Amino acid sequence: MKEVPIKDALPKKRPIPVTLASCMDKNGKPNIITLGWEMQTSIKPVMFAISIGYTRYSYECIRDTGEFVVAYPTEDMAEMSVYCGKESGRDVDKFKECNLEPLPAARIKTPLIPGCLANFECKLLHEYETGDHAIFVGECVAAHVSEEKKGRLYIIDGIYDLGGVGTKE
Amino acid sequence: MKEVPIKDALPKKRPIPVTLASCMDKNGKPNIITLGWEMQTSIKPVMFAISIGYTRYSYECIRDTGEFVVAYPTEDMAEMSVYCGKESGRDVDKFKECNLEPLPAARIKTPLIPGCLANFECKLLHEYETGDHAIFVGECVAAHVSEEKKGRLYIIDGIYDLGGVGTKE
Repeated sequence: MKEVPIKDALPKKRPIPVTLASCMDKNGKPNIITLGWEMQTSIKPVMFAISIGYTRYSYECIRDTGEFVVAYPTEDMAEMSVYCGKESGRDVDKFKECNLEPLPAARIKTPLIPGCLANFECKLLHEYETGDHAIFVGECVAAHVSEEKKGRLYIIDGIYDLGGVGTKE
Repeated sequence: MKEVPIKDALPKKRPIPVTLASCMDKNGKPNIITLGWEMQTSIKPVMFAISIGYTRYSYECIRDTGEFVVAYPTEDMAEMSVYCGKESGRDVDKFKECNLEPLPAARIKTPLIPGCLANFECKLLHEYETGDHAIFVGECVAAHVSEEKKGRLYIIDGIYDLGGVGTKE
């Protein structure tokens, strides 16, 4: 082991899976943000934690509505994932620009993202301040899967790329 | 999209990267826990969030010492990762049982885990209660990398297995 500047060690995290989160502004306009920082954080009940920068439009939306959806894009959703990570919902309607139809959720108002391997509807429970990002913790209240046989999308070397799906033993 | 019981949708998360955390009990005995739930949560300063069940020995250790190390095992560290996820540091010395020499850290007392792609020394900043797990947030105070050319280990279908490492564009 050799000590290095922290930023030089961070690429060793990759590939990490890409997560999308959908949310809604107070006028009901849906939005999508692309995340590398997401984890499950409880089994009973199932909870998810996502980390979002304070300056992001989705930060405002989730605070305003108390809802978000965690979704896992397939390996062929790299282009839309990059777009949704770079653009701001303040300026564009990402569902429209990506030709995605917002799908109705079962227990919350925020729409699901079509084409993803899974969508988890979450009700916001907690917001925690951690440096330059907030952790939102949501309780999962419903889940949806697609029949897609594709793998998840992974972040590799700073860009979104096809990820390995390994072998099932 | 088809609504399913939440537990039936969770496997769609996989493969996800495996993370190890080292910690130390109040008597200075080092321990290792295997985690699937870990994320970065701040850029400046760099912070990591890890989610640990309340019943785990590592939960006590991290609370007692206010320190932990986040480390990323290589794809050939499956066996020790399974062991460190199943056994409890209350009963065994995992470093010893896995033939791992605890390496001195630079800025904290908790040792690094040899053979990993990277080790991040963290000082505990916050503990948050989220369902049946606690989120520990730590500020990274030093980082170490190895020269290993191997990929990270991923969790596939409920067991720890070799993960895909994808292709660099």
